[in-house]
Amino acid sequence: MPYDVVTFGEAMIRLSPPNFARLEQARSLDLRVGGAELNTAVGCARLGRKTAWVSRLTNNPLGRLIANHAREAGVCTEHVSWTRDDRVGLYFLEFGAAPRASSVLYDRKNAAIAQIKPGEIVWERVFAGSKWFHVTGITPGLSDSAAEATKESLVAAKKSGLKTSVDLNYRVKLWTPEQAGKCMREVMKSTDVLITTEEDIERVFGIKGNDYEEAARKTAAEFGLKTIAITLRENPLVWRNTWTAMLLHEGKVLRTKTYELEIVDRLGAGDSFAAGFIHGMLDGDVQRALDFGVAASALKHTLPGDFNWITREEVEAMLQGGGLRISR
Amino acid sequence: MPYDVVTFGEAMIRLSPPNFARLEQARSLDLRVGGAELNTAVGCARLGRKTAWVSRLTNNPLGRLIANHAREAGVCTEHVSWTRDDRVGLYFLEFGAAPRASSVLYDRKNAAIAQIKPGEIVWERVFAGSKWFHVTGITPGLSDSAAEATKESLVAAKKSGLKTSVDLNYRVKLWTPEQAGKCMREVMKSTDVLITTEEDIERVFGIKGNDYEEAARKTAAEFGLKTIAITLRENPLVWRNTWTAMLLHEGKVLRTKTYELEIVDRLGAGDSFAAGFIHGMLDGDVQRALDFGVAASALKHTLPGDFNWITREEVEAMLQGGGLRISR
Amino acid sequence: MPYDVVTFGEAMIRLSPPNFARLEQARSLDLRVGGAELNTAVGCARLGRKTAWVSRLTNNPLGRLIANHAREAGVCTEHVSWTRDDRVGLYFLEFGAAPRASSVLYDRKNAAIAQIKPGEIVWERVFAGSKWFHVTGITPGLSDSAAEATKESLVAAKKSGLKTSVDLNYRVKLWTPEQAGKCMREVMKSTDVLITTEEDIERVFGIKGNDYEEAARKTAAEFGLKTIAITLRENPLVWRNTWTAMLLHEGKVLRTKTYELEIVDRLGAGDSFAAGFIHGMLDGDVQRALDFGVAASALKHTLPGDFNWITREEVEAMLQGGGLRISR
Amino acid sequence: MPYDVVTFGEAMIRLSPPNFARLEQARSLDLRVGGAELNTAVGCARLGRKTAWVSRLTNNPLGRLIANHAREAGVCTEHVSWTRDDRVGLYFLEFGAAPRASSVLYDRKNAAIAQIKPGEIVWERVFAGSKWFHVTGITPGLSDSAAEATKESLVAAKKSGLKTSVDLNYRVKLWTPEQAGKCMREVMKSTDVLITTEEDIERVFGIKGNDYEEAARKTAAEFGLKTIAITLRENPLVWRNTWTAMLLHEGKVLRTKTYELEIVDRLGAGDSFAAGFIHGMLDGDVQRALDFGVAASALKHTLPGDFNWITREEVEAMLQGGGLRISR
Amino acid sequence: MPYDVVTFGEAMIRLSPPNFARLEQARSLDLRVGGAELNTAVGCARLGRKTAWVSRLTNNPLGRLIANHAREAGVCTEHVSWTRDDRVGLYFLEFGAAPRASSVLYDRKNAAIAQIKPGEIVWERVFAGSKWFHVTGITPGLSDSAAEATKESLVAAKKSGLKTSVDLNYRVKLWTPEQAGKCMREVMKSTDVLITTEEDIERVFGIKGNDYEEAARKTAAEFGLKTIAITLRENPLVWRNTWTAMLLHEGKVLRTKTYELEIVDRLGAGDSFAAGFIHGMLDGDVQRALDFGVAASALKHTLPGDFNWITREEVEAMLQGGGLRISR
Amino acid sequence: MPYDVVTFGEAMIRLSPPNFARLEQARSLDLRVGGAELNTAVGCARLGRKTAWVSRLTNNPLGRLIANHAREAGVCTEHVSWTRDDRVGLYFLEFGAAPRASSVLYDRKNAAIAQIKPGEIVWERVFAGSKWFHVTGITPGLSDSAAEATKESLVAAKKSGLKTSVDLNYRVKLWTPEQAGKCMREVMKSTDVLITTEEDIERVFGIKGNDYEEAARKTAAEFGLKTIAITLRENPLVWRNTWTAMLLHEGKVLRTKTYELEIVDRLGAGDSFAAGFIHGMLDGDVQRALDFGVAASALKHTLPGDFNWITREEVEAMLQGGGLRISR
Repeated sequence: MPYDVVTFGEAMIRLSPPNFARLEQARSLDLRVGGAELNTAVGCARLGRKTAWVSRLTNNPLGRLIANHAREAGVCTEHVSWTRDDRVGLYFLEFGAAPRASSVLYDRKNAAIAQIKPGEIVWERVFAGSKWFHVTGITPGLSDSAAEATKESLVAAKKSGLKTSVDLNYRVKLWTPEQAGKCMREVMKSTDVLITTEEDIERVFGIKGNDYEEAARKTAAEFGLKTIAITLRENPLVWRNTWTAMLLHEGKVLRTKTYELEIVDRLGAGDSFAAGFIHGMLDGDVQRALDFGVAASALKHTLPGDFNWITREEVEAMLQGGGLRISR
Repeated sequence: MPYDVVTFGEAMIRLSPPNFARLEQARSLDLRVGGAELNTAVGCARLGRKTAWVSRLTNNPLGRLIANHAREAGVCTEHVSWTRDDRVGLYFLEFGAAPRASSVLYDRKNAAIAQIKPGEIVWERVFAGSKWFHVTGITPGLSDSAAEATKESLVAAKKSGLKTSVDLNYRVKLWTPEQAGKCMREVMKSTDVLITTEEDIERVFGIKGNDYEEAARKTAAEFGLKTIAITLRENPLVWRNTWTAMLLHEGKVLRTKTYELEIVDRLGAGDSFAAGFIHGMLDGDVQRALDFGVAASALKHTLPGDFNWITREEVEAMLQGGGLRISR
Repeated sequence: MPYDVVTFGEAMIRLSPPNFARLEQARSLDLRVGGAELNTAVGCARLGRKTAWVSRLTNNPLGRLIANHAREAGVCTEHVSWTRDDRVGLYFLEFGAAPRASSVLYDRKNAAIAQIKPGEIVWERVFAGSKWFHVTGITPGLSDSAAEATKESLVAAKKSGLKTSVDLNYRVKLWTPEQAGKCMREVMKSTDVLITTEEDIERVFGIKGNDYEEAARKTAAEFGLKTIAITLRENPLVWRNTWTAMLLHEGKVLRTKTYELEIVDRLGAGDSFAAGFIHGMLDGDVQRALDFGVAASALKHTLPGDFNWITREEVEAMLQGGGLRISR
Repeated sequence: MPYDVVTFGEAMIRLSPPNFARLEQARSLDLRVGGAELNTAVGCARLGRKTAWVSRLTNNPLGRLIANHAREAGVCTEHVSWTRDDRVGLYFLEFGAAPRASSVLYDRKNAAIAQIKPGEIVWERVFAGSKWFHVTGITPGLSDSAAEATKESLVAAKKSGLKTSVDLNYRVKLWTPEQAGKCMREVMKSTDVLITTEEDIERVFGIKGNDYEEAARKTAAEFGLKTIAITLRENPLVWRNTWTAMLLHEGKVLRTKTYELEIVDRLGAGDSFAAGFIHGMLDGDVQRALDFGVAASALKHTLPGDFNWITREEVEAMLQGGGLRISR
Repeated sequence: MPYDVVTFGEAMIRLSPPNFARLEQARSLDLRVGGAELNTAVGCARLGRKTAWVSRLTNNPLGRLIANHAREAGVCTEHVSWTRDDRVGLYFLEFGAAPRASSVLYDRKNAAIAQIKPGEIVWERVFAGSKWFHVTGITPGLSDSAAEATKESLVAAKKSGLKTSVDLNYRVKLWTPEQAGKCMREVMKSTDVLITTEEDIERVFGIKGNDYEEAARKTAAEFGLKTIAITLRENPLVWRNTWTAMLLHEGKVLRTKTYELEIVDRLGAGDSFAAGFIHGMLDGDVQRALDFGVAASALKHTLPGDFNWITREEVEAMLQGGGLRISR
Repeated sequence: MPYDVVTFGEAMIRLSPPNFARLEQARSLDLRVGGAELNTAVGCARLGRKTAWVSRLTNNPLGRLIANHAREAGVCTEHVSWTRDDRVGLYFLEFGAAPRASSVLYDRKNAAIAQIKPGEIVWERVFAGSKWFHVTGITPGLSDSAAEATKESLVAAKKSGLKTSVDLNYRVKLWTPEQAGKCMREVMKSTDVLITTEEDIERVFGIKGNDYEEAARKTAAEFGLKTIAITLRENPLVWRNTWTAMLLHEGKVLRTKTYELEIVDRLGAGDSFAAGFIHGMLDGDVQRALDFGVAASALKHTLPGDFNWITREEVEAMLQGGGLRISR
C-alpha cells in the first residue's frame, strides 16, 4: 500500500517512575514506547496520513508490544523486519523539576535494529507509490551497519521519487561529533529537508553563526539544502518552556507563533514537530507546515508519552486561536 | 427535616484519565461524582449547613453511587426520586495543560433527570421550614420536562418563603442561546440572586455592557434583581489562574480579594462560589458572603474532584490571612 | 486487502472496578475494550490470521479508542463506518467470587452500531477475496436495522464465497427468546457453522435433547447444518471452572481435552473459542479446530480483558502438553 | 428520627498493603474504615433499615473520614460525640495466603471512644421510637469508662423498649478472658440475643459443651437467653472457607445452608451476619433471620473492606438459589 | 565502626494521599519514612559519608520498616534501641496548592522515642572514632526524658571529640516557645554549629534583628557560637519557591546561589541542607559547605519523600552549572 | 565484619505486569529485585543472621537500586564490586494461572556480573571469621570468567574454614546440560551441602534413580557429599501447590511436613529454602534445618517478590502449629 509518509529507525520500551520519583525510589515503572522516527510516524498518522514505520524487532513480547503500540496509534508495521535474535532496547526516564533536569538512562545496546544490514529491507517495495521519507541522526548512530542501512534507505527513497527529511538529532551517548559529522554529511546528499536545532548544527557540522538564522543559512549553503527548519526552546524551568521554530526556505526566513508551555512530558516534542511539518509540506504550503509543526508539537508537551495523541481538528482549532477555557 | 439549603439538578459519574493522559491513552479512569447543583449542595454542607439535594436517579449501582457520594459529603438525599428506568449520566474529563485546554465529553443523554416531570417532587414537603433554594441553568437545559420542573420548583420555593438563587451556567452542548434565553428569562421571575459571568449574561440574555459592572447593572435593571454576583477568572495558563468576584447589591458594587491559584482541578469552582456565597447570605452579611464565596472557591481549585472538601474553619483562617507555610 | 476472517458487530468500552470491588465502592475503573465479534477477530489475528472487524463507531475519543485497541491487537479497522452521531456503548463489569457471581451492567443503548442501516457497509468490497465471515446473535439483537444489516452481511458473505459461522450468544437484556428465535432461524439459512451452548439452543430455538449431543443433532437436522460446536463449562466456583467443547460434524461427534481453569477473567472466552476454531477450520482440520478452539479459550480465562493476548506458538505448545512449571 | 437499628462502638481507619504484600514491603496502603458495630450498622442500612451508629470521634480529617464513610453507606452519624481531643484509632491489616494467616496490628490506644463517659450520650434521645440496639464485646473492652458506657447503653435500650443483641467478639489484645468474662456476664443481663462462636463462649464464659450446640444450650441456660446464634467457619485455607451458622431459639436448633466461599476479604463477616440476622428478626421470622444472616455474610467475604456493600435484592436472589453464571 | 556523621532523633511513618487529594478524600495513602535527623543522616549517606542514625523503635512491622528504609538509603541502624513496647509515630501529610498550604497531622504521641531514657544509648560506643554529631530541636521537644537524652548525647559527643550541629527546628505542636527556649539554651552549650531560620531564632530565643543577618550576629554573640547557618525561603506559591541560605562564620557573612524551585515535595528540605552543609564542613571548606548545603537541598525539593535521593556527583554537577536540558 | 553467611551471584531488576496481565498488555510494571544468591542472603538476614552478598554491579541508578534493596532487607553490600561499565540485568515476569504457566523473559546478557574476573574479589577479606558460604549453579553459568570466579570463591571459602552449600539451579537459557555438568562436577569438590531437585540432578549430572531418594544417594556417593537436600513440589495448578523437602544426611533420610500452598509468588522459593536450611545448620540441628527450610520457604510462596520478608518468630510460630485464623 502506498504511504504518505515512511519513517525508519529504532523504537524502545520506555520505563519511567511515576510522580517525579527517581529510579532508585521506584517500585513500579510506567511503560510506554518511544523512538524518534516512530514518534514522527505516529504524529503523521494522527494527522490523517497513511504512514509506515520500518524497523527491526526481536519477536518476543517486548518487540511485539512496540509494534502493537505503533499500530494502536495508526502506524503500519507491515515492513518491520522480525528476528528471534538480539534484544529489545529500553530507556529509563526520570522526570525532573527545577533545578533538576529530566534524565534518560539508555539500555539500547545490542538491540535488534543495531544489527540491521543493508539489503535487509526491500526499500523499493516499501516506497512504491509513497511520498515522503523521514529518518533522524539516531538511526545511523546505532551501529556501522545501521548507518549503511540508513544511507541505503535515503538513496532508495530519492530513487523512488520521495521527498526526504532528516532530523539531525545528535546523541552524545551514541557517537562522537566527529563520527556523526562524517556520516551525516554523507546523509545530507540525499536530504531534501533538514530539521534540527542551532546547537546540533554546531555539534555535528561544526557550523556556527552569529545567530541561528545565520547558522541555518550557512548550513543550507554548505549542503545545498533548500529547506531547513530549526526548533527553538527556552527552558528557564522544567515545567514551563516557550517553544517555536523558524524555517529557512529558498533563502527566506519564515516564523510562527511562540507557545507558552505547561509541560507534562517533553519527550518526542521535536519528533512531533517533524510530523506536523511534513503534514503541512505534503499539502504544499510551507508557512502552514511551519505553523502546523509548531502547534502540533506544542500540544505534544502536554501529553504523557512520546506519542502525540492529538487530532488534526485539534491542531487546526488551535491555529485558529482556541483558548484555555473548558469547552462545555 | 427543614434545610438551610436545597438544590435541584443532575449529577453525573465523572470519569477522567489520570496524569494528564488523553482518553485515547487511558487504561483506567478515575471515578468521581459531579453536577453543578450537587456541587453547591456539598459546598454548603461542608460549611456546616443542613443541605438537601433533589434529583432523579436510576436505581442501579451507578445511581446509588451518586447518592452515596452526596451523603458522604454531608448532603441529604432523602428527596431523590428513584426509578428503575433510564440511565445514569456520565462525563469524561481530560485535564489539559497550556496550550491544551481541559475538555469534557458528555454522555448524559437519556439520564433519569431528563425524564423528571412536574409534580414528581412534592416541593412543599421538601421546602417546609427551609431557607434557601438554588438551581442552575443546566437543569432546565436538560429537557422540556426538566425545564418545567425547574420553573415549578422555583415557584414553589418562593411560595414556601425561601430565598432563591440561580446560576446561569449556560451549556452550549445542551441548548442554543435562544432556547436558554427564553427559558431563563422566565426563570428570573422567581429568582432573588443571580450568579453568573459576564460572558453568560451576553450569551443567554444578549445583554452587553462596556464592562462586567455595566452588564450586571443592565441585567439587574431588566429583571428587577436586587443581587447579582459575577465571578472573574483570568487564565493565561491552565495551571495558573487568578480568581475573584464582584457583587452588585442594591445598586452598590462590592469587591473582594483576588487569589493567585495553582490549579489541581477547576471543575466545580463556580458551584463552590455559590455555596460560599449562600453560606454568607444566610448569615445576612453581603460582603462576607462575597468574601466567603471567593475564598471557598479559590480553595476548591486546589482539590481533585468537583466537590469542595474544605471546612468552614479553613475558609475562615484564609480570610484572616493564612499563608502558604506548612503548619507544624 | 483480502482477509482470512471478517467479523461484524459491536464493541464497547468496558469499565470494571479493580480488586473485586463493587461499582459502588469504585474510585477508579479499569478500562478495556470488548465485544463478541471484535474479541473473535482479535483471537484470529493473534493466531496469525489477516482479520478485519466491521462496525459503526462514533468519531470521538471513545470510539477512536475502540478502533485503536482493535488495531493494537492486529485487527484491521479500515471498514469501520464512522459517524459524528450517536454514542459509544459502555459496559460495567463487577468481578465476583463464590457465592457472588460476576455481573455486567450494560449501558449500550443508542450506540452507533444500533443505527447501522442495510447498505451502509459495501460488503462485496469487504469480502472480496476473503475466506471466513463470523457474526453472533448479539448484533441482530441490537436493533431492527442491525438485524437487517446482519442478515444482509451473511447473504453477501455466502454470495462472495465465504464460509460463515454464527455464535448464537443469546442476551436476555437485548431481546426475548421469541424475537431472537425468529431472527436467528432466518440467520441460520446463511450459516455454515453454528457455535453455541446447549442452553442457548433451548432458549433461542426451543430445541431440547436428553443431552447436549442430542440437542446438537436435532439442531443440525432442523437447519441442515453440517457443523455445530458446543462449549461446555462447569462452574462450581467463580475462580475455578472446567472447560471443554464438543463438535458435531457431518453427523460425527468429536471431543477434546477438558481443562482445569484458574480464572482471571472469563469475559470473551466463548469468543476466543470461536477464533481458535475458525483458525483450525481454515486449515481444514476439524479435530484440530476443536482442539485449538478449546486450548486457545482455556488460555483466555487466565488473561485480563476480553481479548485473547496469546500467540499461536503458545497454543501449539499447550496442545503438545506444556506443563505449569516456569520456563527458565 | 426513630431508627430500626442503633449500634454503638469504635470504628478505626484500616490500612492494608495491596496485593498480599507485607507491611514491611508496603509503599502505599489502602485505606478503609472498619469497626464491628459500624460494620453491623452498615449491613443493616444496606438491607434497607434506618440505622444509626453511635460513637465518639476526634474532629480531625481522620475522624471526619470515618463519619463520612458511615454516611456514604447509609448510616446516620448524627449522634456521634465529637471531640477535639484524643486520636483516631488505626489498624494495619496484612492479607495472608496459606500457610500464612492474615494478621492485624492494632494502633487503637487512646482513641476518642476509649475516653467516652457514661452520661455523654443521651441515650433516651437516640433510642426514642427505635427498635433494636446492637453492641459487641469490643466496646466494653476498650476502657473502664467505655465498659460503663456500654452497660449504660444496654440498660437504656431495654428501658426504651428496644430489643438488644450482643456479639461476644472477644479480643485477646484488649483484655484477659477473666476481665471480659466478668464484664460480659453483667452485659448479658440486658441482652436479648447473643451472637457468638463456640470458641468465644469458652474463652469468655468458660462454658464448654461436647459440641457447639451443647455449649449454646448451657449458655442459654446460664444467662436465661432465649436466642443464641453461633457462626461456624471451616478454614482449611485462607482463600477458601465454608461458612454457616446455627441458631438456638427457645430451645430449638435451627440450621441453614453452608456456603463454599472464595474469599476476597473476610474482615467484617461476623458483623454482617449480625446485620442480616437483625434484619430478619425485625421482620419476626427466626429461620429467615438465620438464612439472611448467613447469606448476607457469605457475600461479605467476596467484597473488599469491612462493609458489606450488597443489596437486599441480591441477598434475596441468593436465597432463591442464584448461580454463578454472569447475568447478561 | 567509626562514622563520619551520627544523628539522633525520631522517624515516623509518613502517610499522604496521592494527587493533591485531602485526607478525607483518600482511599489509599502513599507510605514513606521521615524524621528530621534521619533525613539528615540519609542526606549525608547519599553524599558518601558513613552515617549512623540513633533512635528508639518498637519492634513491629512499622518499626522495622523505618529501619529498613534507613538502611536502604545507606544509613547504619545498628545503634537503634529496640523495644516491644510503645508504638510507632505516624504523620499524615496533605499536599497543598496556592492558596492552600500543605498541612501535616501528627500522630506521634507515645512513640517509642519519647520513652527513651538517659543512659539507654551507650554514646561512647556510638561515637568512638566518629566525627560529627547532629540533632534538632524536635528530639528534646518529644518528652522530658527525650530532652535529657538529647543533652546527654551532645555532652557525650563533645567529650568524644565530635563536632556538633543543632537545627533549632521549633515545632509548635510539641512545646511552647518558653519550654523550647529554656531547653535549647542549655543545648547551645554543647553546640558548635547552629542551623536555623530567622523565624525560629525569634520564636525560640526571642532574639530579633533588623534583618536575619543581625539576628544571626546577636545569636552568635549570645551563645558564643562560631557558625550559624540560616536558610531562606520565599514562597509566594506552593509549587514555586526560591531557596538559598546565608552563613555567619567567625563574624563573616557568606552567601551562595539562590535557586528557583519547582516543588515536588518540600518535606525534609531543611534537613538535607544540614546534610550538605555537614558534608562540606567535614571537608573543611566553609563556603563549599554552604554551596553544597543549598544545592543539595534545592534538589531535594524536586523529589518525593523526606529523603534526598541524590548523589554527590549530581550536586557537584549542579554546582558547576548544569542546566535543565535532558542529557542524552 | 565477620558474617554468618556469605553468598555470591547475580541480582537483577525484576519487572512484572500487575494483575496477571501479559507483557504485551502492560502499561506499567512492578519493579522488584531478585537473584538466587541474593534471595538466599535476604532469607538468612531476615532470620537474624549477619549476611553479606557479593556481586558486581554497574554504578548507575539501577545498580544502586539493587544494592539498596539488599540493604533494606538487612544484607551487607560492602563487598560488592562496582563498575562504570556494562549494564544491569533485567528479567520480565508474567504471572500465570492454570493452564498457563508463569513465564520469565531474561534480559541479563552483558550484565556486570558476567564480566567478573577471578581475583577481583578479595575473598580472604570477605570470609575472615565468617561461617557459611553459599552459591548456586547460576553464577558459573553466566560466563566463563564467572565460572572461574565461582570456583575460586568456593576454594577460598573452604580455605578460610567456611561450610559451603551449592544449589544446582540449572538454567536452560544459560548453558547446556553438558556445560553445566562439566562445571558443576568441579564445583562439587568444594561443596559441603548440595541443595537441588531430582530433576536437576538428572539434567546436570545425568544421575537417575528409581525415586528421588535413590537419586540423592547416588549423587552423594558419586561426589562424596555428606548432605543433600531435595525440594519437592507438586503443582497441579498454578495457584495451589504442595511443598516439602527431604534430606539425605550421613546416609539417613529425613523428612518434614508437607505444606498446602496458596501461591502469591513462587519466585525465590527454593532460595528461601536454602536460607532456612542454612539457618538451621548454623545451629547444628539437621532435622530443624530441614523443618526450618521448608517452613520458611512455604511462607515465601505467600509474599510478592523474590525476597522472603518473614521473621524468625513467624517461622517458629508456624513450626509450633499456628493456624489460619486472624490473630486479634
